[in-house]
Amino acid sequence: MIDLYPNDEASTPKKRGRPKIDPDQSETRRKLIRAGLVHLTEKGYSSVGVDEILHAAGVPKGSFYHYFANKADFGLQLVDAYNRFFLAKLDKAFEQRDLSPLDRLRAFTRDAEAGMAHYDFRRGCLVGNLGQEMGALPEGFRARLIEVLEEWQARTADCLSEAQADGALGPDRNVEELALFFWTGWEGAVLRAKLEKGPEPLRRFTTTFFDLLAE
Amino acid sequence: MIDLYPNDEASTPKKRGRPKIDPDQSETRRKLIRAGLVHLTEKGYSSVGVDEILHAAGVPKGSFYHYFANKADFGLQLVDAYNRFFLAKLDKAFEQRDLSPLDRLRAFTRDAEAGMAHYDFRRGCLVGNLGQEMGALPEGFRARLIEVLEEWQARTADCLSEAQADGALGPDRNVEELALFFWTGWEGAVLRAKLEKGPEPLRRFTTTFFDLLAE
Repeated sequence: MIDLYPNDEASTPKKRGRPKIDPDQSETRRKLIRAGLVHLTEKGYSSVGVDEILHAAGVPKGSFYHYFANKADFGLQLVDAYNRFFLAKLDKAFEQRDLSPLDRLRAFTRDAEAGMAHYDFRRGCLVGNLGQEMGALPEGFRARLIEVLEEWQARTADCLSEAQADGALGPDRNVEELALFFWTGWEGAVLRAKLEKGPEPLRRFTTTFFDLLAE
Repeated sequence: MIDLYPNDEASTPKKRGRPKIDPDQSETRRKLIRAGLVHLTEKGYSSVGVDEILHAAGVPKGSFYHYFANKADFGLQLVDAYNRFFLAKLDKAFEQRDLSPLDRLRAFTRDAEAGMAHYDFRRGCLVGNLGQEMGALPEGFRARLIEVLEEWQARTADCLSEAQADGALGPDRNVEELALFFWTGWEGAVLRAKLEKGPEPLRRFTTTFFDLLAE
Protein backbone atom coordinates (compact mmCIF):
# COMPACT_ATOMS: atom_id res chain seq x y z
CA MET A 1 0.00 0.00 0.00
CA ILE A 2 2.67 2.31 1.09
CA ASP A 3 5.80 2.80 -0.92
CA LEU A 4 5.00 6.40 -0.55
CA TYR A 5 7.19 8.59 -2.60
CA PRO A 6 5.06 9.27 -5.63
CA ASN A 7 6.83 11.40 -8.14
CA ASP A 8 3.83 13.54 -8.70
CA GLU A 9 5.23 16.64 -10.34
CA ALA A 10 4.55 15.45 -13.82
CA SER A 11 0.92 14.85 -13.08
CA THR A 12 0.22 17.82 -10.79
CA PRO A 13 -3.09 19.16 -12.02
CA LYS A 14 -2.86 22.66 -13.45
CA LYS A 15 -5.05 25.14 -11.62
CA ARG A 16 -6.94 27.55 -13.81
CA GLY A 17 -5.46 31.01 -13.83
CA ARG A 18 -2.44 30.09 -11.70
CA PRO A 19 0.77 31.67 -12.96
CA LYS A 20 3.39 29.26 -14.27
CA ILE A 21 5.50 28.20 -11.28
CA ASP A 22 9.24 27.95 -11.46
CA PRO A 23 11.02 24.58 -10.93
CA ASP A 24 12.13 25.55 -7.46
CA GLN A 25 8.58 26.18 -6.26
CA SER A 26 7.43 22.95 -7.83
CA GLU A 27 10.12 21.16 -5.80
CA THR A 28 8.72 22.87 -2.68
CA ARG A 29 5.25 21.60 -3.42
CA ARG A 30 6.62 18.12 -3.97
CA LYS A 31 8.39 18.21 -0.60
CA LEU A 32 5.16 19.22 1.12
CA ILE A 33 3.15 16.47 -0.58
CA ARG A 34 5.80 13.93 0.30
CA ALA A 35 5.93 14.96 3.97
CA GLY A 36 2.13 15.04 4.08
CA LEU A 37 1.83 11.50 2.75
CA VAL A 38 4.42 10.21 5.22
CA HIS A 39 2.74 11.85 8.21
CA LEU A 40 -0.88 11.23 7.31
CA THR A 41 -0.47 7.56 6.37
CA GLU A 42 1.22 7.08 9.72
CA LYS A 43 -0.90 9.20 12.04
CA GLY A 44 -4.01 10.27 10.18
CA TYR A 45 -5.29 13.77 9.50
CA SER A 46 -6.42 15.06 12.87
CA SER A 47 -3.28 14.47 14.86
CA VAL A 48 -0.93 16.07 12.31
CA GLY A 49 -0.60 19.85 12.25
CA VAL A 50 0.54 22.00 9.35
CA ASP A 51 3.58 23.08 11.39
CA GLU A 52 4.71 19.45 11.68
CA ILE A 53 4.53 19.10 7.88
CA LEU A 54 6.44 22.35 7.35
CA HIS A 55 9.13 21.26 9.77
CA ALA A 56 9.49 17.82 8.16
CA ALA A 57 9.61 19.32 4.67
CA GLY A 58 11.94 22.15 5.70
CA VAL A 59 9.62 24.67 4.06
CA PRO A 60 8.49 28.09 5.40
CA LYS A 61 4.81 28.69 6.18
CA GLY A 62 4.31 31.22 3.39
CA SER A 63 5.17 28.59 0.78
CA PHE A 64 2.52 26.25 2.14
CA TYR A 65 -0.18 28.84 1.63
CA HIS A 66 1.16 29.59 -1.83
CA TYR A 67 0.21 26.07 -2.85
CA PHE A 68 -2.69 25.18 -0.57
CA ALA A 69 -5.65 27.26 0.62
CA ASN A 70 -5.67 25.50 4.01
CA LYS A 71 -5.12 22.13 5.67
CA ALA A 72 -8.29 20.67 4.13
CA ASP A 73 -7.19 21.67 0.62
CA PHE A 74 -3.78 20.12 1.34
CA GLY A 75 -5.49 16.92 2.54
CA LEU A 76 -7.56 16.67 -0.64
CA GLN A 77 -4.46 17.19 -2.78
CA LEU A 78 -2.75 14.44 -0.78
CA VAL A 79 -5.68 12.15 -1.64
CA ASP A 80 -5.16 12.96 -5.33
CA ALA A 81 -1.42 12.32 -5.13
CA TYR A 82 -1.97 9.08 -3.23
CA ASN A 83 -4.59 7.96 -5.75
CA ARG A 84 -2.25 8.58 -8.70
CA PHE A 85 0.48 6.58 -6.97
CA PHE A 86 -1.93 3.83 -6.07
CA LEU A 87 -3.58 3.50 -9.49
CA ALA A 88 -0.11 3.14 -11.00
CA LYS A 89 0.58 0.35 -8.51
CA LEU A 90 -2.68 -1.43 -9.37
CA ASP A 91 -2.13 -1.03 -13.11
CA LYS A 92 1.36 -2.46 -12.78
CA ALA A 93 -0.02 -5.53 -10.97
CA PHE A 94 -3.01 -6.03 -13.27
CA GLU A 95 -1.01 -5.66 -16.47
CA GLN A 96 1.24 -8.66 -15.76
CA ARG A 97 0.06 -10.70 -18.71
CA ASP A 98 2.38 -13.58 -17.84
CA LEU A 99 0.28 -14.19 -14.71
CA SER A 100 -3.28 -15.48 -14.49
CA PRO A 101 -5.79 -12.76 -13.54
CA LEU A 102 -6.18 -14.05 -9.96
CA ASP A 103 -2.39 -14.24 -9.60
CA ARG A 104 -2.22 -10.58 -10.64
CA LEU A 105 -4.45 -9.67 -7.71
CA ARG A 106 -2.31 -11.88 -5.46
CA ALA A 107 0.77 -10.06 -6.78
CA PHE A 108 -0.80 -6.74 -5.78
CA THR A 109 -1.33 -7.97 -2.22
CA ARG A 110 2.31 -9.08 -1.97
CA ASP A 111 3.53 -5.79 -3.39
CA ALA A 112 1.36 -3.89 -0.91
CA GLU A 113 2.68 -6.04 1.94
CA ALA A 114 6.27 -5.27 0.88
CA GLY A 115 5.36 -1.57 0.87
CA MET A 116 4.02 -1.77 4.42
CA ALA A 117 6.97 -3.89 5.59
CA HIS A 118 9.38 -1.28 4.23
CA TYR A 119 8.04 1.15 6.84
CA ASP A 120 7.74 -1.47 9.55
CA PHE A 121 3.93 -1.55 9.23
CA ARG A 122 3.69 1.94 10.68
CA ARG A 123 1.99 3.39 7.61
CA GLY A 124 -1.52 2.43 6.62
CA CYS A 125 -3.63 3.40 3.66
CA LEU A 126 -4.29 7.13 3.40
CA VAL A 127 -7.83 6.50 2.18
CA GLY A 128 -8.58 4.06 5.01
CA ASN A 129 -7.09 6.42 7.59
CA LEU A 130 -9.16 9.35 6.37
CA GLY A 131 -12.31 7.24 6.07
CA GLN A 132 -11.96 6.19 9.70
CA GLU A 133 -11.59 9.83 10.70
CA MET A 134 -14.59 10.99 8.66
CA GLY A 135 -16.32 12.36 11.80
CA ALA A 136 -13.46 14.83 12.27
CA LEU A 137 -12.93 15.75 8.60
CA PRO A 138 -14.42 18.52 6.48
CA GLU A 139 -17.43 17.14 4.59
CA GLY A 140 -15.70 17.60 1.21
CA PHE A 141 -13.55 14.52 1.83
CA ARG A 142 -16.46 12.09 1.81
CA ALA A 143 -17.36 12.11 -1.89
CA ARG A 144 -13.72 12.15 -2.97
CA LEU A 145 -12.71 9.18 -0.79
CA ILE A 146 -15.69 7.12 -2.01
CA GLU A 147 -14.79 7.97 -5.59
CA VAL A 148 -11.20 6.84 -5.11
CA LEU A 149 -12.24 3.51 -3.58
CA GLU A 150 -14.65 2.98 -6.47
CA GLU A 151 -11.82 3.54 -8.96
CA TRP A 152 -9.74 0.84 -7.25
CA GLN A 153 -12.75 -1.46 -7.19
CA ALA A 154 -13.52 -0.94 -10.87
CA ARG A 155 -9.98 -1.97 -11.84
CA THR A 156 -10.23 -5.00 -9.54
CA ALA A 157 -13.61 -5.97 -11.02
CA ASP A 158 -12.02 -5.86 -14.50
CA CYS A 159 -9.30 -8.22 -13.30
CA LEU A 160 -11.93 -10.57 -11.83
CA SER A 161 -13.89 -10.44 -15.11
CA GLU A 162 -10.79 -11.66 -16.88
CA ALA A 163 -10.58 -14.51 -14.37
CA GLN A 164 -14.18 -15.29 -15.19
CA ALA A 165 -13.48 -15.29 -18.93
CA ASP A 166 -10.62 -17.73 -18.26
CA GLY A 167 -12.87 -20.01 -16.23
CA ALA A 168 -10.93 -19.48 -12.99
CA LEU A 169 -14.07 -17.86 -11.53
CA GLY A 170 -17.54 -19.31 -12.11
CA PRO A 171 -19.90 -17.47 -14.49
CA ASP A 172 -22.39 -16.90 -11.65
CA ARG A 173 -19.94 -14.78 -9.62
CA ASN A 174 -20.75 -11.10 -9.34
CA VAL A 175 -17.38 -9.50 -9.97
CA GLU A 176 -18.46 -6.01 -8.85
CA GLU A 177 -19.65 -7.38 -5.49
CA LEU A 178 -16.47 -9.41 -5.10
CA ALA A 179 -14.32 -6.37 -5.88
CA LEU A 180 -16.20 -4.33 -3.24
CA PHE A 181 -15.84 -7.22 -0.80
CA PHE A 182 -12.11 -7.43 -1.49
CA TRP A 183 -11.54 -3.71 -0.88
CA THR A 184 -13.73 -3.58 2.19
CA GLY A 185 -11.83 -6.47 3.70
CA TRP A 186 -8.43 -5.30 2.48
CA GLU A 187 -8.81 -1.93 4.19
CA GLY A 188 -9.69 -3.84 7.35
CA ALA A 189 -6.60 -6.02 6.89
CA VAL A 190 -4.32 -2.98 6.42
CA LEU A 191 -5.74 -1.50 9.62
CA ARG A 192 -5.08 -4.75 11.45
CA ALA A 193 -1.54 -5.08 10.04
CA LYS A 194 -0.80 -1.58 11.32
CA LEU A 195 -2.27 -2.50 14.69
CA GLU A 196 -0.31 -5.77 14.93
CA LYS A 197 2.79 -4.25 13.30
CA GLY A 198 3.26 -7.27 11.06
CA PRO A 199 2.22 -8.98 7.80
CA GLU A 200 0.02 -11.76 9.22
CA PRO A 201 -3.35 -9.98 8.91
CA LEU A 202 -2.69 -9.21 5.23
CA ARG A 203 -1.56 -12.77 4.49
CA ARG A 204 -4.36 -14.47 6.37
CA PHE A 205 -7.02 -12.24 4.81
CA THR A 206 -5.63 -12.91 1.33
CA THR A 207 -5.36 -16.67 1.84
CA THR A 208 -8.94 -17.00 3.07
CA PHE A 209 -10.25 -14.70 0.32
CA PHE A 210 -8.69 -16.81 -2.44
CA ASP A 211 -9.63 -20.08 -0.71
CA LEU A 212 -13.26 -18.95 -0.65
CA LEU A 213 -13.12 -17.92 -4.32
CA ALA A 214 -11.67 -21.29 -5.30
CA GLU A 215 -14.63 -23.23 -3.94
CA MET B 1 -21.66 -1.81 16.84
CA ILE B 2 -22.68 1.38 18.40
CA ASP B 3 -25.62 1.57 20.72
CA LEU B 4 -23.17 3.21 22.99
CA TYR B 5 -24.51 3.69 26.44
CA PRO B 6 -23.07 0.78 28.36
CA ASN B 7 -24.18 0.74 31.92
CA ASP B 8 -20.73 0.03 33.18
CA GLU B 9 -20.89 0.99 36.84
CA ALA B 10 -21.64 -2.50 38.01
CA SER B 11 -18.58 -3.89 36.33
CA THR B 12 -16.12 -1.05 36.95
CA PRO B 13 -12.92 -2.81 37.98
CA LYS B 14 -11.89 -2.09 41.53
CA LYS B 15 -8.48 -0.49 41.83
CA ARG B 16 -6.29 -1.83 44.60
CA GLY B 17 -6.08 0.50 47.55
CA ARG B 18 -8.58 3.00 46.15
CA PRO B 19 -10.93 4.31 48.84
CA LYS B 20 -14.55 3.38 48.37
CA ILE B 21 -16.13 6.07 46.18
CA ASP B 22 -19.51 7.56 46.92
CA PRO B 23 -22.40 7.04 44.46
CA ASP B 24 -22.15 10.60 43.19
CA GLN B 25 -18.53 10.16 42.16
CA SER B 26 -19.37 6.90 40.50
CA GLU B 27 -22.02 8.77 38.49
CA THR B 28 -19.34 11.28 37.49
CA ARG B 29 -17.11 8.53 36.19
CA ARG B 30 -20.00 7.07 34.26
CA LYS B 31 -20.71 10.43 32.62
CA LEU B 32 -17.08 10.73 31.57
CA ILE B 33 -17.00 7.22 30.11
CA ARG B 34 -20.24 7.85 28.27
CA ALA B 35 -19.03 11.16 26.80
CA GLY B 36 -15.71 9.55 25.90
CA LEU B 37 -17.38 6.71 24.01
CA VAL B 38 -19.61 9.11 22.10
CA HIS B 39 -16.74 11.36 21.08
CA LEU B 40 -14.11 8.72 20.34
CA THR B 41 -16.37 6.44 18.28
CA GLU B 42 -17.26 9.48 16.21
CA LYS B 43 -13.95 11.28 15.86
CA GLY B 44 -11.20 8.99 17.12
CA TYR B 45 -8.66 9.59 19.87
CA SER B 46 -6.32 12.21 18.47
CA SER B 47 -8.83 14.84 17.51
CA VAL B 48 -10.70 14.77 20.83
CA GLY B 49 -9.25 16.70 23.78
CA VAL B 50 -9.93 16.09 27.45
CA ASP B 51 -11.57 19.53 27.68
CA GLU B 52 -14.13 18.52 25.06
CA ILE B 53 -15.01 15.44 27.11
CA LEU B 54 -15.30 17.48 30.31
CA HIS B 55 -17.54 19.99 28.60
CA ALA B 56 -19.80 17.28 27.12
CA ALA B 57 -20.01 15.46 30.45
CA GLY B 58 -20.48 18.66 32.47
CA VAL B 59 -17.73 17.59 34.83
CA PRO B 60 -14.88 19.73 36.29
CA LYS B 61 -11.28 18.91 35.42
CA GLY B 62 -10.33 17.80 38.91
CA SER B 63 -12.87 14.97 38.79
CA PHE B 64 -11.36 13.66 35.58
CA TYR B 65 -7.96 13.31 37.22
CA HIS B 66 -9.58 11.69 40.23
CA TYR B 67 -10.62 8.77 38.03
CA PHE B 68 -7.99 8.75 35.28
CA ALA B 69 -4.24 9.30 35.40
CA ASN B 70 -4.24 10.97 31.97
CA LYS B 71 -5.86 10.85 28.55
CA ALA B 72 -4.17 7.53 27.68
CA ASP B 73 -5.47 5.90 30.88
CA PHE B 74 -8.93 7.25 30.06
CA GLY B 75 -8.64 5.82 26.53
CA LEU B 76 -7.72 2.38 27.84
CA GLN B 77 -10.63 2.44 30.28
CA LEU B 78 -12.90 3.38 27.38
CA VAL B 79 -11.63 0.30 25.53
CA ASP B 80 -12.56 -1.82 28.56
CA ALA B 81 -16.03 -0.28 28.82
CA TYR B 82 -16.59 -0.68 25.09
CA ASN B 83 -15.44 -4.29 25.23
CA ARG B 84 -17.84 -5.13 28.07
CA PHE B 85 -20.70 -3.56 26.13
CA PHE B 86 -19.68 -5.33 22.95
CA LEU B 87 -19.21 -8.79 24.46
CA ALA B 88 -22.70 -8.50 25.93
CA LYS B 89 -24.01 -7.67 22.46
CA LEU B 90 -22.22 -10.66 20.93
CA ASP B 91 -23.35 -13.01 23.66
CA LYS B 92 -26.92 -11.86 23.19
CA ALA B 93 -26.73 -12.62 19.46
CA PHE B 94 -24.92 -15.96 19.84
CA GLU B 95 -27.23 -17.26 22.54
CA GLN B 96 -30.35 -17.14 20.39
CA ARG B 97 -30.91 -20.88 20.43
CA ASP B 98 -34.03 -20.57 18.26
CA LEU B 99 -31.78 -19.47 15.38
CA SER B 100 -29.27 -21.55 13.45
CA PRO B 101 -25.65 -20.67 14.31
CA LEU B 102 -25.09 -18.81 11.03
CA ASP B 103 -28.34 -16.90 11.53
CA ARG B 104 -27.06 -15.82 14.95
CA LEU B 105 -24.05 -14.22 13.28
CA ARG B 106 -26.39 -12.63 10.72
CA ALA B 107 -28.50 -11.33 13.62
CA PHE B 108 -25.41 -9.71 15.12
CA THR B 109 -24.70 -7.87 11.85
CA ARG B 110 -28.27 -6.56 11.70
CA ASP B 111 -28.16 -5.47 15.33
CA ALA B 112 -24.85 -3.69 14.71
CA GLU B 113 -26.31 -2.01 11.63
CA ALA B 114 -29.28 -0.79 13.68
CA GLY B 115 -26.82 0.59 16.26
CA MET B 116 -24.94 2.53 13.58
CA ALA B 117 -28.17 3.73 11.94
CA HIS B 118 -29.37 5.07 15.29
CA TYR B 119 -26.50 7.56 15.18
CA ASP B 120 -26.83 8.20 11.46
CA PHE B 121 -23.66 6.19 10.73
CA ARG B 122 -21.51 8.84 12.34
CA ARG B 123 -20.10 6.47 14.96
CA GLY B 124 -17.73 3.68 14.06
CA CYS B 125 -16.17 0.97 16.15
CA LEU B 126 -13.96 2.28 18.95
CA VAL B 127 -11.48 -0.55 18.42
CA GLY B 128 -11.31 0.05 14.67
CA ASN B 129 -10.91 3.79 15.17
CA LEU B 130 -8.08 3.35 17.63
CA GLY B 131 -6.40 0.66 15.51
CA GLN B 132 -6.35 3.02 12.54
CA GLU B 133 -4.76 5.70 14.73
CA MET B 134 -2.12 3.37 16.17
CA GLY B 135 0.71 5.59 14.87
CA ALA B 136 -0.51 8.44 17.06
CA LEU B 137 -1.40 6.38 20.16
CA PRO B 138 0.66 5.46 23.21
CA GLU B 139 2.17 2.01 22.66
CA GLY B 140 0.12 0.48 25.52
CA PHE B 141 -2.98 0.45 23.33
CA ARG B 142 -1.60 -2.06 20.85
CA ALA B 143 -1.67 -5.23 22.97
CA ARG B 144 -5.03 -4.36 24.50
CA LEU B 145 -6.76 -3.70 21.16
CA ILE B 146 -5.41 -6.95 19.70
CA GLU B 147 -6.63 -8.83 22.78
CA VAL B 148 -10.13 -7.37 22.45
CA LEU B 149 -10.39 -8.31 18.77
CA GLU B 150 -9.23 -11.83 19.63
CA GLU B 151 -11.98 -12.13 22.26
CA TRP B 152 -14.61 -11.21 19.65
CA GLN B 153 -13.07 -13.64 17.20
CA ALA B 154 -13.02 -16.50 19.71
CA ARG B 155 -16.74 -16.11 20.34
CA THR B 156 -17.38 -15.98 16.60
CA ALA B 157 -15.26 -19.08 16.02
CA ASP B 158 -17.37 -20.92 18.64
CA CYS B 159 -20.51 -19.92 16.76
CA LEU B 160 -18.98 -21.14 13.47
CA SER B 161 -18.00 -24.42 15.17
CA GLU B 162 -21.63 -24.94 16.07
CA ALA B 163 -22.55 -24.32 12.42
CA GLN B 164 -19.97 -26.96 11.52
CA ALA B 165 -21.45 -29.43 14.02
CA ASP B 166 -24.87 -28.81 12.42
CA GLY B 167 -23.49 -29.44 8.96
CA ALA B 168 -24.16 -25.87 7.77
CA LEU B 169 -20.40 -25.42 7.36
CA GLY B 170 -18.21 -28.11 5.82
CA PRO B 171 -15.89 -30.10 8.15
CA ASP B 172 -12.85 -28.85 6.23
CA ARG B 173 -13.50 -25.19 7.11
CA ASN B 174 -11.06 -23.56 9.49
CA VAL B 175 -13.38 -21.71 11.86
CA GLU B 176 -10.60 -19.69 13.51
CA GLU B 177 -9.43 -18.38 10.14
CA LEU B 178 -13.00 -17.64 9.09
CA ALA B 179 -13.64 -15.75 12.35
CA LEU B 180 -10.50 -13.66 11.80
CA PHE B 181 -11.56 -13.08 8.19
CA PHE B 182 -15.02 -11.99 9.33
CA TRP B 183 -13.67 -9.47 11.85
CA THR B 184 -11.02 -8.12 9.53
CA GLY B 185 -13.64 -7.51 6.88
CA TRP B 186 -16.30 -6.31 9.28
CA GLU B 187 -14.03 -3.58 10.65
CA GLY B 188 -13.43 -2.54 7.04
CA ALA B 189 -17.20 -2.54 6.43
CA VAL B 190 -17.87 -0.38 9.51
CA LEU B 191 -15.23 2.08 8.29
CA ARG B 192 -16.87 2.18 4.87
CA ALA B 193 -20.38 2.59 6.33
CA LYS B 194 -19.13 5.56 8.31
CA LEU B 195 -17.51 6.97 5.17
CA GLU B 196 -20.64 6.46 3.04
CA LYS B 197 -22.98 7.39 5.90
CA GLY B 198 -25.28 4.47 5.14
CA PRO B 199 -25.90 0.74 5.67
CA GLU B 200 -24.97 -0.53 2.19
CA PRO B 201 -21.32 -1.44 2.96
CA LEU B 202 -22.39 -3.53 5.97
CA ARG B 203 -25.14 -5.29 4.03
CA ARG B 204 -23.09 -5.97 0.93
CA PHE B 205 -20.14 -7.27 2.96
CA THR B 206 -22.44 -9.57 4.96
CA THR B 207 -24.26 -10.88 1.89
CA THR B 208 -21.05 -11.75 0.06
CA PHE B 209 -19.52 -13.29 3.20
CA PHE B 210 -22.45 -15.67 3.70
CA ASP B 211 -22.73 -16.38 -0.05
CA LEU B 212 -19.08 -17.44 -0.07
CA LEU B 213 -19.58 -19.62 3.03
CA ALA B 214 -22.57 -21.33 1.46
CA GLU B 215 -20.62 -22.58 -1.55
